Formats: sequence, C-alpha cells, structure tokens
Amino acid sequence: MSEEDPAALSKRLASLEARVRALEDQAAVLRLVCSWGPAVDSGDSEAASGLWDERGVLESDLSRLEGPAAVAAMVQSAGQQALIRQGCAHVQTAPIVDIVGDDAVVTTYSQVFLHGEEAHEVWRVSANRWECRKTPAGWRLTRRVNRVIDGSSAPRELLANALSGDASERRPGPPH
Amino acid sequence: MSEEDPAALSKRLASLEARVRALEDQAAVLRLVCSWGPAVDSGDSEAASGLWDERGVLESDLSRLEGPAAVAAMVQSAGQQALIRQGCAHVQTAPIVDIVGDDAVVTTYSQVFLHGEEAHEVWRVSANRWECRKTPAGWRLTRRVNRVIDGSSAPRELLANALSGDASERRPGPPH
Amino acid sequence: MSEEDPAALSKRLASLEARVRALEDQAAVLRLVCSWGPAVDSGDSEAASGLWDERGVLESDLSRLEGPAAVAAMVQSAGQQALIRQGCAHVQTAPIVDIVGDDAVVTTYSQVFLHGEEAHEVWRVSANRWECRKTPAGWRLTRRVNRVIDGSSAPRELLANALSGDASERRPGPPH
Repeated sequence: MSEEDPAALSKRLASLEARVRALEDQAAVLRLVCSWGPAVDSGDSEAASGLWDERGVLESDLSRLEGPAAVAAMVQSAGQQALIRQGCAHVQTAPIVDIVGDDAVVTTYSQVFLHGEEAHEVWRVSANRWECRKTPAGWRLTRRVNRVIDGSSAPRELLANALSGDASERRPGPPH
Repeated sequence: MSEEDPAALSKRLASLEARVRALEDQAAVLRLVCSWGPAVDSGDSEAASGLWDERGVLESDLSRLEGPAAVAAMVQSAGQQALIRQGCAHVQTAPIVDIVGDDAVVTTYSQVFLHGEEAHEVWRVSANRWECRKTPAGWRLTRRVNRVIDGSSAPRELLANALSGDASERRPGPPH
Repeated sequence: MSEEDPAALSKRLASLEARVRALEDQAAVLRLVCSWGPAVDSGDSEAASGLWDERGVLESDLSRLEGPAAVAAMVQSAGQQALIRQGCAHVQTAPIVDIVGDDAVVTTYSQVFLHGEEAHEVWRVSANRWECRKTPAGWRLTRRVNRVIDGSSAPRELLANALSGDASERRPGPPH
C-alpha cells in the first residue's frame, strides 16, 4: 500500500484529525480556565457558574463551594462584591495542560491584584489545579484546588504534580 | 461514497485545513498582542507602530492615539522614555481569543510593573480589548481599549463582554 | 492533476501535517518553559534539571549555571530553599515563540512573587530568552538569559530581539 493509496490517505487523515482535535481541546480548556477571572471580576454570577459542571467543586483555604449554585452565591456575596467595588483582577498565568480523552488538568499560577491608592497590590498568589471534563455542551470545570503560596507544602505538592508525566499517571490521586 | 473515496477525502482534508488555519490564526493574534510589551518596553517605536493597522486606535484613560504615527510618537514621548529609564514591563495575561473570519478580539488582563528600590511595583492592572484584522501583510491591531481596574464599571463591562458568546454576537457594540 | 487526485491529496496532507507539527511544537516549548516555575518553586531539583539539555546554560545577574547538575544544585541551595520556605512563585507571561526546525526561542516576561505578611511582593520582573532544542527525548532547554528590568539596556535589547522577524534571522547573535 503506497502513501497515495486512498486507504492509506484516509488513515493519515484520521491520525491528523485526532491531533488537531487535541490542539483544539487544549485551546478550549485554556479558554475555560481564563474565563474565570473575567466572570468573577465583572460580578457575572451566571457566567461564573456556567463554567462549572453540575458536580463541580471549588476548594481553597477561603471556602469549599459545591456546584454551580454555590459558585453563583459566592460571586454575589458581600465579600466578593466588596472586592469588585475596590477593583480586583483574578489572573491566570503559566498554564501546563494535560488532556487524556475527555478529562483535562490545567495547572496555573494565579494572582489576585487589588486596586490601591498609588498602585495595585498583589493580594494573593496561588498554585491551582483545574480539572475539566468534556461534556456534550463543551468543556466544563469539575474541580479547582487553590493553594496560596505561603511556604506551606500544599502548593508545592500541587505544582510538583504537574511535572510528573501525563494526566493519566496522576489519577486518581489529586493533591490535598 | 465511502470514507476512502477521493472526493470524500478531499472534503475531509478541506475541513481539517480550515481548523488548522483557525489554530494558526489564534497563535498569530496572541503573538501580535504579546508583542506590544516588548515593543514599548524596549522603546522600539517602529516595531510598536508596525503592529497597528493604518486606522488603528488605542484608547485608554491616559490617551487616545489614532494611527501608527501617533503610537510611534507615544513611544518616543518624554513620559514613556522616563518609564523605560526606570524599568517598565507591560505584560499581558489570561487571554480569551475570539476569531470570526478576518476579525479577532483578544481580551486580556494587563499589568505594568515598574522597577523600584527593593522590589517591583504593580503600577497599573487593566482590562483590555484588542481588536485585530487579518491584512495581506498579516494580523494587525485595529483597536485597543484599556480600562484600569479601579472599581469603576468600564473594565467590568469589557471583561463581561468577553464571556458573552462568540465575537460575531458581540459586534458591532464594543465596550466604552 | 485535480484536487481529488490521490497524489494531490497526499501533497495537501503532507503540507497540513507539517503545519500541525509546528502547532504541536509551539505547545510543547511553551509547556517546557512554563514547567520551570513549578520545578523550582516545589524544590523538585530532578524535574528542574530534567528540563535542560546536557549542555544547557542558565545565565542571569544572580548566577551562571552550566548543565543539569548545576541547575539541580541551585534548586537545592540554601538560597533557593529559603525562598521556597518563604513561599515563592516563578511565573512566565506573554510568550513570543519562534521555531525554526529543531530550534526554538521563547521570549517571556517573568515575575517572581514572594509571600509576605499582608500581601505578596513582586521581587523581580525580568525579560527572558529561552532557547530550546528538539531532542529524541523531546524539547529541552539549551540556554536561558534572564535580565532584570531595572532601566538598563540589556533587558531592552533582549525584548527588541524578539520583534525582529523570525528566529533564524536572529541567529547566531543572541543578546548579552
């Protein structure tokens, strides 16, 4: 079978289609993760909760939120509304993406900048593990673990986890 | 017509070519937007103005620049030269990219870091809407709206806009 | 030869395969560069040194490290361990990627955030040139030049270099 045999061409094409799908998935999960900041900083509780899977869990030292309704309530809370009135920016940087089938893990550093008199303050810098699932409606967040980088071991373990091979090897033992 | 029929193969290939072009466009507009910092921080007024379309407009609370020559003049201005001598870094983070045909919108958070005695200061954190157009010479900036995140509504509206579906739905009503 | 001729299809496919490989390479080198922070901030000296080619060189105002063993020693050093105990985040932002064959250059802004009492401090903001090589084992770092943005000319030259066309034109004269 030559390289120009229709069956061989079809096979090459199928392989390439899978690789393009992988690149598109990578772009889609990055967009998902980068949508969190604009949603919470604009106070758009519907958009923020819409990023989450029905069983999604957001876990940090500040709170543990279960499900989109809890996410929406957090955005509408007095605490988040006070940050918004002050001027806040929840920023994701330096993503490492691992995708296995319909599951993705994105590890990022996040910064929360707050508006001050003369300059902006860096309120929190954290390590983040974002778990995502491809649903019929698109990629959705299933879990986020946020650990402030404060010298404790939890954020270090989360970051080290991003380096240890592919996502499949890392399951089912996420960092705590 | 089977999957291995030459006409079917050609059709699959055309579909894949369009998807690859979309991924390449996404990489190209991100490069365009990420080139702004190196251009203004190195004082390269030619490179900075070269990122812009002839009718490009840069709009912020600091200034309103129309066209590449005005961008070049800003880079050469006493104010920007003073920032460069102090040491400045104009950084883009957390991009959300929407492309429809030859038009693209990239929403980012930008930070301007300034060098200080002991550490760097976060002078400004802003929400940004970058509009880009694909020209025969490549992607060029057609409009940038920069809104400092200071608790006012303008940056919030700009960020919320990035979440509301695809770029086509958002036109022609950009944030003000 | 029509568009649906098997030989023509094979040629279109080969062209597309090369473009997809270029996009995959771009994702791979970004992952490589974004792995540096998690490696040094978690104190994983094996992971940090594993990112480097045998002849890799890391050059900054703080040190000049030659080879993976020197990188591992730096991660284990008292200075880096003190930063880790305090809580440090080495973050890359706004990458510009140039790939020519098996060589890549990624220009970034890096920030080092340190944990403090009330907030995080921005200790260092730098311009970075990351040179990478595709080896049989994957992409590896061959050289990193880190220049603190402090008003001096070195970081400006490094940043300007990222704007001057493609990577091939820039060789063999890297910034110093």
